[in-house]
Amino acid sequence: MLDDIKDIRDIQKLNITELKDLSKEINSFILESVSKTGGHLASNLGVTDLTVALFKVFDFNRDKIVFDVGHQSYAYKILTGRKDDFKTLRKYNGLSGFPKKEESKYDFFNTGHSSNSISAALGYAVTRDLNHDNYNVIALIGDGSMTGGEAFEGLNNLGSLNTKMLVILNDNGVSISNSVGGLAKKLNNIRINQKYINFKKDLKKKYKSKTIFILRKVKNHLKNVILPNRMFESFGVKYIGPINGHNMKELVDTLTKIKNIDSPIILHVLTEKGHGYELATKYPNLYHGVSTFDIEEKIEKKNMDYSKAFGEALTELRKEDDKIVAITAAMKDGTGLTKFADTYPESFFDVGISEEHAVTFAGGIALNGYKPVVSIYSTFLERAYDQILIDICMQKLNVVFAIDRAGLVGEDGETHQGIFDISYLSHMPNMEIIAPKCVEELKPCLKYALNRPNPVAIRYPKGFYSCEEYALDSLKTGKWSIIQKGKKIALITTGKTFELALKIKEEFKDIEIINATFIKPLDTELLDKLIKDDYEIITVEDNQIIGGFGSLVLLYLNSKNYSKKLHILGYEDKFIKHGKVSELMDENNINYDYLKELISKLKNML
Amino acid sequence: MLDDIKDIRDIQKLNITELKDLSKEINSFILESVSKTGGHLASNLGVTDLTVALFKVFDFNRDKIVFDVGHQSYAYKILTGRKDDFKTLRKYNGLSGFPKKEESKYDFFNTGHSSNSISAALGYAVTRDLNHDNYNVIALIGDGSMTGGEAFEGLNNLGSLNTKMLVILNDNGVSISNSVGGLAKKLNNIRINQKYINFKKDLKKKYKSKTIFILRKVKNHLKNVILPNRMFESFGVKYIGPINGHNMKELVDTLTKIKNIDSPIILHVLTEKGHGYELATKYPNLYHGVSTFDIEEKIEKKNMDYSKAFGEALTELRKEDDKIVAITAAMKDGTGLTKFADTYPESFFDVGISEEHAVTFAGGIALNGYKPVVSIYSTFLERAYDQILIDICMQKLNVVFAIDRAGLVGEDGETHQGIFDISYLSHMPNMEIIAPKCVEELKPCLKYALNRPNPVAIRYPKGFYSCEEYALDSLKTGKWSIIQKGKKIALITTGKTFELALKIKEEFKDIEIINATFIKPLDTELLDKLIKDDYEIITVEDNQIIGGFGSLVLLYLNSKNYSKKLHILGYEDKFIKHGKVSELMDENNINYDYLKELISKLKNML
Repeated sequence: MLDDIKDIRDIQKLNITELKDLSKEINSFILESVSKTGGHLASNLGVTDLTVALFKVFDFNRDKIVFDVGHQSYAYKILTGRKDDFKTLRKYNGLSGFPKKEESKYDFFNTGHSSNSISAALGYAVTRDLNHDNYNVIALIGDGSMTGGEAFEGLNNLGSLNTKMLVILNDNGVSISNSVGGLAKKLNNIRINQKYINFKKDLKKKYKSKTIFILRKVKNHLKNVILPNRMFESFGVKYIGPINGHNMKELVDTLTKIKNIDSPIILHVLTEKGHGYELATKYPNLYHGVSTFDIEEKIEKKNMDYSKAFGEALTELRKEDDKIVAITAAMKDGTGLTKFADTYPESFFDVGISEEHAVTFAGGIALNGYKPVVSIYSTFLERAYDQILIDICMQKLNVVFAIDRAGLVGEDGETHQGIFDISYLSHMPNMEIIAPKCVEELKPCLKYALNRPNPVAIRYPKGFYSCEEYALDSLKTGKWSIIQKGKKIALITTGKTFELALKIKEEFKDIEIINATFIKPLDTELLDKLIKDDYEIITVEDNQIIGGFGSLVLLYLNSKNYSKKLHILGYEDKFIKHGKVSELMDENNINYDYLKELISKLKNML
Repeated sequence: MLDDIKDIRDIQKLNITELKDLSKEINSFILESVSKTGGHLASNLGVTDLTVALFKVFDFNRDKIVFDVGHQSYAYKILTGRKDDFKTLRKYNGLSGFPKKEESKYDFFNTGHSSNSISAALGYAVTRDLNHDNYNVIALIGDGSMTGGEAFEGLNNLGSLNTKMLVILNDNGVSISNSVGGLAKKLNNIRINQKYINFKKDLKKKYKSKTIFILRKVKNHLKNVILPNRMFESFGVKYIGPINGHNMKELVDTLTKIKNIDSPIILHVLTEKGHGYELATKYPNLYHGVSTFDIEEKIEKKNMDYSKAFGEALTELRKEDDKIVAITAAMKDGTGLTKFADTYPESFFDVGISEEHAVTFAGGIALNGYKPVVSIYSTFLERAYDQILIDICMQKLNVVFAIDRAGLVGEDGETHQGIFDISYLSHMPNMEIIAPKCVEELKPCLKYALNRPNPVAIRYPKGFYSCEEYALDSLKTGKWSIIQKGKKIALITTGKTFELALKIKEEFKDIEIINATFIKPLDTELLDKLIKDDYEIITVEDNQIIGGFGSLVLLYLNSKNYSKKLHILGYEDKFIKHGKVSELMDENNINYDYLKELISKLKNML
């Protein structure tokens, strides 16, 4: 069927049975395709029925839709002419895993970070009104994203402007089953009404025949379902639902009914993460974002990486210091904190997607004599820029920021690359920034950071790198390590780029190789020596050049009248799309070949 | 009475009548004192009764309180031993206008930006629990701050953690009378219950005797009062109120009753902004933040300044281009947009305190073919760092950021200095940053910015500066202006520091003086000429050095093998406290004397 759809309007001609079949076909295709490319799986399988129903009722040649986060837009991409590109999903120069207006005229807002869809859609809605037009504008937002402050800001403004707009709350119960947020908790206790009972029956009937129905799972989902009508109505937005997100008729009927209402509406749709694929419904977290996998076998847990090393180190440190508290924003697994949370539940706080709150909350915790460690991905910590600067740095609090996924992250692409954190932290007074050069250094970095009179950011990349023989046992403020003594040329690496230092060491036995565990403050003593002996200096980092490590070194060298050019290797002033980390580093000349050539050139010039 | 209070516990011994008298005495003192020093007036007068009641019921030797924003903490400061310092309020080395833990052990969290008090207080509450203690933790938050996303994030987490904490919603009806937010709008229609009627009667009785009762004002306030119980209870926080914030007995009784409840509570208190001072109750916006003034006479409206010039320029441009849309976040007056809003209400959006939403919303507007201008103070725009980077710059949208209060703002102090915006914007790909050198250049800057294929930030300082004869009529991308031709030494100013250029021009007739309207991109053609002719180069800016204008110039010079030292004048890596802008610039060597000495020294070395 899928191949017969040449134009999105063809979907409007299908009847309910055909729509159901189409949806199944799409889900099979997604499962098959993602098993070969990797990507977001469970979230996408959950909204295919809903997406198909949206195409039946709306016409995205006129109507607009904004996908919150965008990791649930695969069915939408497939139906808007991008099916054949799915084999290139998340690959270098291939299809992005998130909405991209550069890919299709049907993508209206590039997303990747959460909780902003209502705001973006409202921008479309008010300008539609200024144009005296009347098409539909839809924001599709998950229950997890609803805890982000911007979602409430958008909702409040939507209610105030009181214009025609549809917010679809895609509730797959995930943020709720994790008991994140008072809203969810409170509403857990509310009686289950007829709608839920029907939803339950429907699922039961469907799954029983396939004998893959897991009663407990669905029961929990239902028990945890939220009923936020009162809250939404307080904001002035009409609430409708909940409806069964896997009942095509109910979806189409409801969407058709509300399509012409000229006021803001929130439609509550219950969906099942991983729908149609047993393993994904059973282990939605495991199948949230996947690498290539075998459809028939359960994915094995991942091996040691920076995140896991962080979690283990923090758990060990907590053993000796009960003042340590860990905070994460809906990323317990991703940041490696599961073990810590299981071992010390009283000292663990998952605040849900709410980075701003997470950081200020840590400030209060620090002021009351505890040692908070806030673990958030580099790209998402951007949301708390102001709180880090004003609430933490200005008060000079010992809050530790464990910044996971710093530097390039690869396949998730431009919205997720962690290449700005040094730039947004380096100008914050009182902040120290450090980078372990391998997983073994996470513990000494944490130990150091937890005992400072100021905030400390520890940035570490996605993935794994071990360097046992080089790993420091302890850190001294602003002290760098000399990896190889040498003359005339000095190469300074930091964090992930230390991997290059060791390769260069093999090739060039006579240049000085230094690793900067400290990005801020700098090792001025060592730099003074390089200046005095008139070294050629190269810095190489996994961050933007502007405001980055090299820029800090350059400012220092300039203040000391160093007259040579500083060779700064880092990312240029542009966004970096998706692909393998190694491909992207090659593209941006952060690799062995480029460094080798540069050093050779410098040697020849001496 | 005030002078008899040697210890905060003395207040607990007072009876209701004495508390009332104390409150009146404090308000008279605040009025008298602020009329001589300037400061926040109306917000402070409104919470004195409430503050006195808090001291009667709570003991801040054990209990904690966090003031949201903190511009309502004067009574609290007076009662915690800082009365005698009030003559130094907001002066250089004097008392801060915001809570400062460096000033008093009774200040528990330094605030200044909005909507973070619930998060900070919750940090105190959870660590109190870890310590198995049981004191009270209070967040005092205004209705205006409640629209900020972080407040909802905090509330959601508070409901989830379900611990003992008191949130006092200080509702003075200001955000509501301005019709900001759906929450407020929706609840306007709810019937006025007995509580409100009593509040009305109380005020009526009180004011009538003084013949200064303005019925319409109070009636509007009551009509607009919000009844958000349903929303708060949806988050799992028990709602109590509303109570009359100027009825001492009701305040003390209610606080006493809820003091020992072991779960999160939101207490809704109705207060009157400017309470007790007729002019301030009549014109709360005018008396929100004041300079020195005469108590007997109404403050006159301020003269032309950058904000007003911005508003007028935008209004003129809108006349010719109906695609222009203005967005502000609860700062219509402050950003100079009142005239625009009155002239083109359909093109004006005050989204309330919600900077994140404001920026993404602008993104949607730009994508739908309109030209949004987002006007927010430099320091508050920090809240939307991620949205500017990911939603606007990454999609390369023509959103114009009119960044008011860029650079030092003076008396509001460290939480409000706009000295980071170049640093947080300069590493954002696709972003242009420009700075008018005087009020006359705001219009050409806006005109330029509105016609670019990318985002443009226009940064301009607090205050006024005219430079008619030097003002540009139009801008060319990356093009700087030569103010004086000269040799060997080049001084490059930008924005506010252009004032120094003209003074230096008087003294040194032979050096090159350049003004950089463009902070990004740089005028590389002109810089190449300076490099070629081996000029000594000085940059001077009203921003942090790290990531600032000079840093961008340095990166360029370094890439071109320029071997001299670049003399970068800007703010060092520290926060800057309050005082007059001129005093603070002197302290930081951004002044004529320092520049003159530096140039003289360089001339001597040539």
